[in-house]
Amino acid sequence: MTDPRPVALRWDGRALRVLDQTALPAAERWLTLTGAADTAAAIRRLSVRGAPLIGIVAAYGLALEVAAQPGLGALERGWEELRAARPTAVNLAWAVDRVRDACLAAGPATIAGVARGTAQAIHAEEDAASAAIAAAGAERLAGARRFLTICNTGALAAGGEGTALAVIREAHRRADGGVHVLACETRPLLQGARLTVWELERAGIPHALVADGAAAGLIARGEVDAVLAGCDRVSADGAVANKVGTYGLALAAAAAGIPFVVAGPTSTVDLGTPTGADIAIEERDGDEVRAVLGTPVTLAGTPVRNPAFDVTPPALVTALVTERGIAEPVDAAAVAALKA
Amino acid sequence: MTDPRPVALRWDGRALRVLDQTALPAAERWLTLTGAADTAAAIRRLSVRGAPLIGIVAAYGLALEVAAQPGLGALERGWEELRAARPTAVNLAWAVDRVRDACLAAGPATIAGVARGTAQAIHAEEDAASAAIAAAGAERLAGARRFLTICNTGALAAGGEGTALAVIREAHRRADGGVHVLACETRPLLQGARLTVWELERAGIPHALVADGAAAGLIARGEVDAVLAGCDRVSADGAVANKVGTYGLALAAAAAGIPFVVAGPTSTVDLGTPTGADIAIEERDGDEVRAVLGTPVTLAGTPVRNPAFDVTPPALVTALVTERGIAEPVDAAAVAALKA
Repeated sequence: MTDPRPVALRWDGRALRVLDQTALPAAERWLTLTGAADTAAAIRRLSVRGAPLIGIVAAYGLALEVAAQPGLGALERGWEELRAARPTAVNLAWAVDRVRDACLAAGPATIAGVARGTAQAIHAEEDAASAAIAAAGAERLAGARRFLTICNTGALAAGGEGTALAVIREAHRRADGGVHVLACETRPLLQGARLTVWELERAGIPHALVADGAAAGLIARGEVDAVLAGCDRVSADGAVANKVGTYGLALAAAAAGIPFVVAGPTSTVDLGTPTGADIAIEERDGDEVRAVLGTPVTLAGTPVRNPAFDVTPPALVTALVTERGIAEPVDAAAVAALKA
Repeated sequence: MTDPRPVALRWDGRALRVLDQTALPAAERWLTLTGAADTAAAIRRLSVRGAPLIGIVAAYGLALEVAAQPGLGALERGWEELRAARPTAVNLAWAVDRVRDACLAAGPATIAGVARGTAQAIHAEEDAASAAIAAAGAERLAGARRFLTICNTGALAAGGEGTALAVIREAHRRADGGVHVLACETRPLLQGARLTVWELERAGIPHALVADGAAAGLIARGEVDAVLAGCDRVSADGAVANKVGTYGLALAAAAAGIPFVVAGPTSTVDLGTPTGADIAIEERDGDEVRAVLGTPVTLAGTPVRNPAFDVTPPALVTALVTERGIAEPVDAAAVAALKA
């Protein structure tokens, strides 16, 4: 089957429905979100995930909250709850801050309409950013045909067609179908196996799934032209926090002399975080590692370390592709220029 | 609970029983092996795994074959079947070659006794090698307390207490219990989650399980003093074929400036394989990646790449610890000296 483009959320001006990504690919189950509490819960349990998408959905969640209870009290409570849902992706804070700031500037009388309009603007901007990222990334990687990627960075993770996966889709179109993708399964939560494979299959892009540990060896054997990843937060010095496992791919790409390219909207760039060492890394529940989709894989109660992200230093990032252009080499000046 | 030392096989002079490692840690199920065919099948489906252990069990399997059907025909057929069971671990070929050579030298009349005696000698030597590796490795890494390891390299993988995990056990004894181990789960077949955690728990060694992709980031954050791995084959130039994922750990260790130490008996060193590029890498069934312990994790029929091993170049191996001493730095001369 080839596309209809999968979308992760539906907004009709009043109601917000999101695809429950924890149920994919076995089932396409839609959730209706009504305010800050259920939106924050959906983000925490990863029914909605992907840094750009989290920002969009959180903005809508806050707009729904103040639509139901117009007033600054509901705005503040909803803003706090959503902002705390996940610590690493900066888009979440960026999006709800923007909705709140617009509401505070507008005043209580028009708060509901301003919140809704701001959320819709964020959504539209992130959709447009995706298309710009796809074009810039495909141009930068012209000639590359064999990509390796991690996690899910497609339409299930962002506006439009996504970030890194949108680059791959655009490269596929430009190469008349000559692209092949190795998708890392992305333990513990298997976003690659469950979500990226689902998107690639629907898009008709040839691909193969690999265990995360297999990626470095396949890169070393010359089977990959470029590694593409998304980002959850980029610090001012150009360090990239992304799904755990990304840093290892960057090391392997550098050792093989192939590009390691990060794609994301500038909403993930956080000049308020000076360096990679300043990025808070979310540690998630050990049960995510102790079991796979409900099947235990180890002794009950085994101690677990489960960082959800890792940090790739800027020296290992060949290029940072955004909707405002490409930072290459990746350093503080180039990153600052993207946000100027 | 603390040890009784787990053992992977029981041999009473006539019958061979092996722990079915595919059933761990949920169940401790023992299989009785009777000859070449069922021994080869147990090795292929990984009921018996770990390079040194495969060699020991294959030697017994061939001995049982010629005990049941004494004669050179059974010897040749059993030798071929066992030798073909898995391509990467050189111990398998080394062990059955040794049994066959001894039988051919002895002649048909005494073939059963010679085969049994040779298998028992291999077993005893590998047990002794394990103890020597443990002592040499713990000495080399004196001061290191926080280890990271991949796959299973303990008593379930080798003679005695194993190879890399035997070093950790010895370090734990020498440090009066002050050791901590991060165990990579080791997808696709989860030998870390299922087997290493089981051994560490029984040995009373503090540990935590991590997703394979989390290892590099934890190393970069300074949480590991040394990475320890086993080996399935070491080529003449010192390249190390080991469980897929090992190469990425070596890259991360090098980037962090911590030792990446490989431990194995000299039976895994194959001077007949000139370089890492000459090592045949087994590609296993894609269903191992498509499902986890029977639970599907992706779309049915998704294409998969499933190399079981990768190759770490000698420049990334800080030291190769064997029962005959340590190669450091790891190069052709040092490797040749181990086999001299």
